[in-house]
Amino acid sequence: MVSKNQIKLITGLQQKKYRKLHKLFIAEGAKVIQELIAADFQLEQLFVTESVLPEIPESKKEYITESELKKITALTTPNNCLAVFKIPEERPIIESGLIVALDDIRDPGNLGTILRLCDWFGIQQLLCSEQTVDLYNPKVVQATMGSIARVNVTYLDLNAFVGQSKLPVFGTFMDGENIYKSELPAKGIIVLGNEANGISAALEQLTTHKLSIPRFGKLQKTESLNVATATAIVLSEFLRNT
Amino acid sequence: MVSKNQIKLITGLQQKKYRKLHKLFIAEGAKVIQELIAADFQLEQLFVTESVLPEIPESKKEYITESELKKITALTTPNNCLAVFKIPEERPIIESGLIVALDDIRDPGNLGTILRLCDWFGIQQLLCSEQTVDLYNPKVVQATMGSIARVNVTYLDLNAFVGQSKLPVFGTFMDGENIYKSELPAKGIIVLGNEANGISAALEQLTTHKLSIPRFGKLQKTESLNVATATAIVLSEFLRNT
Repeated sequence: MVSKNQIKLITGLQQKKYRKLHKLFIAEGAKVIQELIAADFQLEQLFVTESVLPEIPESKKEYITESELKKITALTTPNNCLAVFKIPEERPIIESGLIVALDDIRDPGNLGTILRLCDWFGIQQLLCSEQTVDLYNPKVVQATMGSIARVNVTYLDLNAFVGQSKLPVFGTFMDGENIYKSELPAKGIIVLGNEANGISAALEQLTTHKLSIPRFGKLQKTESLNVATATAIVLSEFLRNT
Repeated sequence: MVSKNQIKLITGLQQKKYRKLHKLFIAEGAKVIQELIAADFQLEQLFVTESVLPEIPESKKEYITESELKKITALTTPNNCLAVFKIPEERPIIESGLIVALDDIRDPGNLGTILRLCDWFGIQQLLCSEQTVDLYNPKVVQATMGSIARVNVTYLDLNAFVGQSKLPVFGTFMDGENIYKSELPAKGIIVLGNEANGISAALEQLTTHKLSIPRFGKLQKTESLNVATATAIVLSEFLRNT
C-alpha cells in the first residue's frame, strides 16, 4: 500500500528541487538497485510488485500492486521495483589520473552514457558544470546502469576549477590537432562541450591542448558526433596505450 | 489546413506497415529536411507553421497552424515543419571497404547514432538483420541528423549474407582479442550485436575474428558498453591508421 503522502514525496523526487530538499533520489529495476546497495548507498524505502531482490530482507520490502507502482514510477514502462535512496554527501575531488569535465551537458541519456564510459575506462572523477543535468535525475540514474556508484561526480564552477588547475586541459574542436597523432598523457582534464554549442568560449580560453577527431566521410558533411560517442573515442585514445 | 485523410495518412506513417504500404516516411525539422532534399530524396508534402526553408518554392509549402502540426507530428515537442518523403528504391550493396552489420538492434536512437558514426567514418554500407528497427521509423530519422542520406542501408537475412561472404568477419566479445593490439584490415564486415543479448550464437559461429574492447575500470564491474559507444570505439580503431 502506498499512501498519498508517499506518492507526493516520491513523484516529487522527479524534480531537482525536491531531491535537494529531501536529499533523496529514486532508482528503478533490480540491477540498478543492487549496484547501488553494493556500493553502500543508503536504502530508505523499497517498493516491489513481486518477489525480487532476494538478498534484501523481506522486512525492508513494501509489497505494492502494479497500479500503485504506476503512480510512483518515473518510467513509461515501469519495472517491478522502485527504491528511494539517500543522496550521499559529496566526496572530495580525486585529482589523480584523468579527469573528465562536462560543460553544460543537458541530456540525461548523454550524462548516463558518459558516466558508464568513465567507469569502463577507469576514470575516477567526473566534474560537471552547474548547468549540467542533475546526476540524480531518474533518467540519468537509469542510464548509468550502476556506474553512478563507482565514479565520483562533483558539480562545481567548472571555469574556476579549470582556471586554477595546473593540469593540462584537453578539449575537442573542429580545428584541433589530430587526436590519433597526438601525445596523450596519463594525467589531465578532458573537457566535453554542450550538445548544441560545444565548449564555451571561456573554457576554450583555458584549454591548453586542442584536439580533433578526424572525419573520414568523403562528403565531409556530417556535422558533428554525438557528445557520448565523441567521449567514447576520446577516452579510448587516451587509454589505449596504457 | 490539414484534412482528416491527411492526418490519418501521416500519423499512420509512424507505423512500419503503413510506411511499407505507402512507400512514404516523415521527417521533421529544417535541418533533416534540408539534408534529405540535398540528397535527392523525393519530397511529397511539406507542412510548415512559419516561413522556414527559404530554398524551397512557396508553392510546395502548406501553411498550417501549430495545433494542426500537433495532430501530425511524431515528436513530443514538435518543430515548425514536417515533410513527407518517398522511400527510395533499395540500392545494391556496396561491397568495397568496411561494412557495418547490425544483428537485431532494437533501439531507434542506437540505430540513428550508429548511422551518424558510419557517415563520420566514411562507411558506405550498413547491413541490418530483418529484426533491426526500421530505418524510416520517425525516431531513427530524427536521430540520424541527415546521415540517412549518405549511407546505403540494406535490410536482409544477415546470417545468410555473412555465411556466403568471403570477407573477414569481426565481432566484439568479452573473450576476444584486445582490439588495441589487433591488425585491423581496410576491408571486412564488422558485426554489432543486440542491446540485451549481444551477437547471436549463429552469427558468432560465422565470425572469423573475435575482438574485445578492454575494460580499464579497477572494479571490473561495468557490465558492458552501450552498443553505440562500442561502435564508436571499434570504428575509430579500424580507421585511425588510414
